[in-house]
Amino acid sequence: MKWLRSTDTDFADSLRALTAWNETEDPAVVSSVDAIVRDVIARGDAAVLDYSHRFDGLSVASVSQLEVHQPRLQAALGAISAPQREALEQASTRIRDYHEHQLQDSWSYRDAHGNRLGQQLTPLQRVGVYVPGGKASYPSSVLMNVIPAKVAGVEEIVMVVPAPTGNINDMVLAAAAIAGADRVFTVGGAHAVAALAYGTETIPRVDKIVGPGNIYVATAKRRVFGQVGIDMVAGPSEILIISDGDSNPDWIAMDLFSQAEHDENAQSILLSPDREFLSAVSASIDRLLPTMERAEIITASLERRGAMIETVDLADAVNISNRIAPEHLELAVAEPEQWLPEIRHAGAIFMGRYTPEALGDYCAGPNHVLPTAGTARFSSPLGVYDFQKRSSIIHCSPEGAQALAPLASTLARGESLEAHARSAEYRIDTDS
Amino acid sequence: MKWLRSTDTDFADSLRALTAWNETEDPAVVSSVDAIVRDVIARGDAAVLDYSHRFDGLSVASVSQLEVHQPRLQAALGAISAPQREALEQASTRIRDYHEHQLQDSWSYRDAHGNRLGQQLTPLQRVGVYVPGGKASYPSSVLMNVIPAKVAGVEEIVMVVPAPTGNINDMVLAAAAIAGADRVFTVGGAHAVAALAYGTETIPRVDKIVGPGNIYVATAKRRVFGQVGIDMVAGPSEILIISDGDSNPDWIAMDLFSQAEHDENAQSILLSPDREFLSAVSASIDRLLPTMERAEIITASLERRGAMIETVDLADAVNISNRIAPEHLELAVAEPEQWLPEIRHAGAIFMGRYTPEALGDYCAGPNHVLPTAGTARFSSPLGVYDFQKRSSIIHCSPEGAQALAPLASTLARGESLEAHARSAEYRIDTDS
Repeated sequence: MKWLRSTDTDFADSLRALTAWNETEDPAVVSSVDAIVRDVIARGDAAVLDYSHRFDGLSVASVSQLEVHQPRLQAALGAISAPQREALEQASTRIRDYHEHQLQDSWSYRDAHGNRLGQQLTPLQRVGVYVPGGKASYPSSVLMNVIPAKVAGVEEIVMVVPAPTGNINDMVLAAAAIAGADRVFTVGGAHAVAALAYGTETIPRVDKIVGPGNIYVATAKRRVFGQVGIDMVAGPSEILIISDGDSNPDWIAMDLFSQAEHDENAQSILLSPDREFLSAVSASIDRLLPTMERAEIITASLERRGAMIETVDLADAVNISNRIAPEHLELAVAEPEQWLPEIRHAGAIFMGRYTPEALGDYCAGPNHVLPTAGTARFSSPLGVYDFQKRSSIIHCSPEGAQALAPLASTLARGESLEAHARSAEYRIDTDS
Repeated sequence: MKWLRSTDTDFADSLRALTAWNETEDPAVVSSVDAIVRDVIARGDAAVLDYSHRFDGLSVASVSQLEVHQPRLQAALGAISAPQREALEQASTRIRDYHEHQLQDSWSYRDAHGNRLGQQLTPLQRVGVYVPGGKASYPSSVLMNVIPAKVAGVEEIVMVVPAPTGNINDMVLAAAAIAGADRVFTVGGAHAVAALAYGTETIPRVDKIVGPGNIYVATAKRRVFGQVGIDMVAGPSEILIISDGDSNPDWIAMDLFSQAEHDENAQSILLSPDREFLSAVSASIDRLLPTMERAEIITASLERRGAMIETVDLADAVNISNRIAPEHLELAVAEPEQWLPEIRHAGAIFMGRYTPEALGDYCAGPNHVLPTAGTARFSSPLGVYDFQKRSSIIHCSPEGAQALAPLASTLARGESLEAHARSAEYRIDTDS
């Protein structure tokens, strides 16, 4: 891991180099995805079948055979262990409770002229949830993407998950059953994204596609954006921990590992004004690392992108955090509430010594889909608000129109838009 | 204008063809924008100066000479006519009042274990507003983009507006003064977008860029998305009017014109179950068209993309509208409130006979930046919520962590993420 001090003269440059993440699109991937999307638009089900055969080794006669029906989802619930089912159900309940706080209502008011103004909020009608399959399986991702859509009132949630050579994880299917996915297809990759965006004979067209995936899936989501809504295209995951030096160093080391174990590009950064504590955490890392199942990935991630940063004080640490705008921010300090108003940018803030990121990843309630790579400067965790949309409501009374029309007319003529002006002016003469 | 009947056997296909809008990126524009963006990243101010010279004919020694300071904005307020100033100020007040209803607060609650969960809402720190310049000038666009950011509490709003050969519109500067833009630069085009996204020596880096522009500006916004947030990239504007046949046909004709006069690709569609009324509007169009300043654009737009659609009844009209998901929907019917719950998708809904779109475009209060080309299926008008962002708050009590850690551990091990599990398990033993 790199060691930096915030008082070093080249610290600003070092910090920039440390956190730089340039996701350049791979032109070969872009053009291959483009061809797949065009093919799915043109040939629908037939194209989906071809790609499923080619990429997942699935030989079926029709896309309808790729649909996983409710009895199979219910069977998965019986197939997993009792503690696993219990954990999925409790996590699901907590995630639902939390997200219900995000539900927003239509609103309106009347102005002094009797005009009614407001917004009507409605759920998206149909949403696609992409769930990665293959070697890794993430039932928590099913809960985090399906439940907010369900809470928003989305009519139909269509989940797609690749099943290479027919293998599909029971935890994923059980999570789909618990979260309430309405239809599930074992289709993955760019052709699944294209099928959701444009619809085929069998797979319905959705209004928005959410959920993580590999580079082909991410590129396909970018490609179909505009035709449908998409959630963010995520970069590698990161954690920034601010410690006052009074936590157990083993705990902090393990919290850093929990980020680093995701993949070699994941980033774990520890900030503390306490140099001895940083050394103690470093010693914990050296001692604990050999005991970890994913020691190799953790080592590569910490080597490549990890850092210990010695700060002047906690305020200095918070300032640095605001420059980074981390996805996950852990405030392992005595009085985390005191620092909260100073936090300008962060996807999620884990407060105090008893809130490791892992609790938020699975079951505390908040969403684990968070803005990465500094995008917390302008974006938010996935939430119910991503599955509701707004229509402005404007209802002018005859008197209200009389009051507004002269303003509109003046401004429209200032922009040389005469029809706008005359359309407003017509409403001034109420005898018409 | 096309005439369609919803009972025609090929109606679904005709409707699809009518509303199809494929904005394909122009590869030449994409590569030229890419070069400009890279150049601005590499050379900062020097690149901005070169492009301002090349595209706008501005010869200045430094970018700071392109800044328009507050005294000049105040002078513009004095230079416009009294009715214009009055209209801008009244519109501004109404837009501010409306948008204040959209401001959202941080929230949190405690669960049964004493864990605190919620979201902290904060304004974006710095926002860039792009304002088109040149032959057309849109002061209303300044109000609609700056005011929601201001209401959200954005610290600094940086406006850019091209000033070809030094010309700049007083109404635009006056609107900037009234809306509260903090800094204004006379820079436009792709290099202005790049400067806002990456910052130069003189132009500060922003967190999000909003506002309309030509194809170069739109392409540049797409290019820098991820580095900064952007608002939607808009297609041509559209209106869909549903009439019960009892409005004045001249009013409806003029409302159709008010959309068509924007540009040749703008779309105006009228739906009514009353065939005679459609004929009457057609007659009004023929009679009024020669009197319009922008008759040529209106004619081209109506020819190319306009339509009259005879529906079975009003319910049929509403169903068709939901399939189109129009940007602007005018319900010129006796009881608009009755139909509101049936409207699934629309950017803005103009209710009754006294609410032409023009009132909403300028001064009713709601935003005129709306989702186009069917994107109302999944997106919303520009609002204060586009300038606020959320950070999840999770603060576990020691007891709360005890309750959650076993769930997290079970789920993490199910995903083979051991460090996540152990990080949670540490918090079970509170003696540590």
